Amino acid sequence: MVNYKLLTPGPLTTTMAVKEEMLTDHCTWDDDYKSITQKIRQELLELAHADKDKYTVILMQGSGTFGVESVISSVVSDNDKLLIAANGAYGKRIAQIAGYHKLDYVCHNVDYDKIPDAAELEEIIKEGGFTHLAMVHSETTTGILNDIESVAEVCKRNGVKFIVDAMSSFGGIDIDVQGLGIDYIISSANKCIQGVPGFSFIIAKRESFLKTKGTARSLALDLYDQWETMEKDGKWRFTSPTHTVLAFAKAIEELKEEGGIEARNRRYSKNNRMLIEKMKEMGYEPYISEQYQSPIITTFSCPENDFSFSEMYEYIKERGYAIYPGKLDGMNTFRIGNIGEIYPEDIEKLCGIIKEYSEMKGMI
Amino acid sequence: MVNYKLLTPGPLTTTMAVKEEMLTDHCTWDDDYKSITQKIRQELLELAHADKDKYTVILMQGSGTFGVESVISSVVSDNDKLLIAANGAYGKRIAQIAGYHKLDYVCHNVDYDKIPDAAELEEIIKEGGFTHLAMVHSETTTGILNDIESVAEVCKRNGVKFIVDAMSSFGGIDIDVQGLGIDYIISSANKCIQGVPGFSFIIAKRESFLKTKGTARSLALDLYDQWETMEKDGKWRFTSPTHTVLAFAKAIEELKEEGGIEARNRRYSKNNRMLIEKMKEMGYEPYISEQYQSPIITTFSCPENDFSFSEMYEYIKERGYAIYPGKLDGMNTFRIGNIGEIYPEDIEKLCGIIKEYSEMKGMI
Repeated sequence: MVNYKLLTPGPLTTTMAVKEEMLTDHCTWDDDYKSITQKIRQELLELAHADKDKYTVILMQGSGTFGVESVISSVVSDNDKLLIAANGAYGKRIAQIAGYHKLDYVCHNVDYDKIPDAAELEEIIKEGGFTHLAMVHSETTTGILNDIESVAEVCKRNGVKFIVDAMSSFGGIDIDVQGLGIDYIISSANKCIQGVPGFSFIIAKRESFLKTKGTARSLALDLYDQWETMEKDGKWRFTSPTHTVLAFAKAIEELKEEGGIEARNRRYSKNNRMLIEKMKEMGYEPYISEQYQSPIITTFSCPENDFSFSEMYEYIKERGYAIYPGKLDGMNTFRIGNIGEIYPEDIEKLCGIIKEYSEMKGMI
Repeated sequence: MVNYKLLTPGPLTTTMAVKEEMLTDHCTWDDDYKSITQKIRQELLELAHADKDKYTVILMQGSGTFGVESVISSVVSDNDKLLIAANGAYGKRIAQIAGYHKLDYVCHNVDYDKIPDAAELEEIIKEGGFTHLAMVHSETTTGILNDIESVAEVCKRNGVKFIVDAMSSFGGIDIDVQGLGIDYIISSANKCIQGVPGFSFIIAKRESFLKTKGTARSLALDLYDQWETMEKDGKWRFTSPTHTVLAFAKAIEELKEEGGIEARNRRYSKNNRMLIEKMKEMGYEPYISEQYQSPIITTFSCPENDFSFSEMYEYIKERGYAIYPGKLDGMNTFRIGNIGEIYPEDIEKLCGIIKEYSEMKGMI
């Protein structure tokens, strides 16, 4: 039995009440269970500020990547052309998916510490005849927050379908999905809604999505087929991760009890500001500039060259927290997430432990 | 909080100790967790009677179908030809997967109450130039148990790779995977090993599998890529269902404590024999003849025409058990599974409830 809190971009630390929902083996196909699935779908719509007649929700087994691939491979047809704006590993992963399915696509790469520029994307769209644009909202590779609002405007203006990977932001950052006219937004059970891993979810604009029947290239990841079965009465096509689904239903309840996305965002933002301030005081500089920094996860550069992440990791873990390795080539960095059941007192405690360690190693 | 036991082909009833493993939010990438994954992989090999230098294990996020599709779409290349022997919905699902991926395949359909005949399959293989043969071991559509031993012989003799969907049998029926020379066998966490749903696993013959790099048609379901990362040190490529993984590790421990697959098979077989005997006494006839009946799940025909499954289901559920609907067109049937934490006293109790209900309805 481990005894630490997770300071990662998810799987994250959930409440005991959420985990205790998993102490039941639930039947997969009867009315009780189907109504839980339907309730989750309805509540996700509400969190997205989307009306039921304009948007719909599909739950998909597997990790977030399974959800992203189910969208990319089920809605971009052989006659479509996909533009991907990538400033991190998760943007690049979308391009990798497009490659597997031999889609007609272009990956527009942006430096990892910059955000894709809406005006630039508009030019590319106009020149390239693109039908779809995909990008990540909160790139956990670095912790940068992309400007989906401006890009949504560009997509709307140019009649381009907008696919947003909001894996680590949905539920922690308010997104007016219907207002922005986003066509597909993807997130996962184990992120800011604070459930446990096992499935992802997709909120889709009916107008766009209902035209995609027959486009999918995989049975398991066939988004339309999954939706068609689920839409009837809440039944999943194939075995669902029942325990994860029960935990997620509880997690949504707790999100509402906290005061919804707005209140959760305030807590995460407070955690994040406090973390950055205290880390800066010790000489750990955030990699992303303040204006682009998400309230989800932060990349820090290490002041010392002989820094050993795994040693620091173990030191911190023994004292109650698990932090996250960096994901930048050629740079000594590490990441600290501040989502999940994490509160200012955790940040306080963590920074105390890092200070202790850094002083012990003569790093500060 | 529901309070019933599942008499289904899985998700099934697990022990409280297995479920309690899910009360921890585990970090996904550190050494502790990676070693749990490695231990699971090693123990699955042992359950399959397979040596580490000849076989390897891949865990795959999602339901069992995700595992089956990851195999079919990752190991059958455009130059291969796949024969599918189908006597139920799960055999047909393999054909559906082959269709999605535009494989060169033939589906050999057999009546649902018959098993695919090895000699007949051998003829088809010889005439058709097939490279791969896929079939289901325990078809939960009906409860029939297919003869993979004879078919394995045919495959071996003809140099054909053998893919076995052993979803609902592995762990409950002893399979000498290496002895039979099976190339790929697929099962899932929430079946006879008695874990909870969230991932499937594939035991693959190295000699065949290591040649499949680059064949996959999906990123998420790329079996080779998943293996390559996992083989290094136990890391999953993408977020794993950590809680499910912890529960599964515990479930394997409990399987060993029970006395391994042999002992578990004895318990399941006893449950099954008792169930059939008592049901027959009431006039409920098994759909599958005794010689082909699996010890996993049984399809029963209903003696009355105005039988309402949902009414009987609710009656039984209120009294502590969830049974399963039938899956046969044009026939009044239902299914009762006897795997999971189910003991003769449960069968006794269940049959008492069914008797009570049947008498009340004047059915017997």
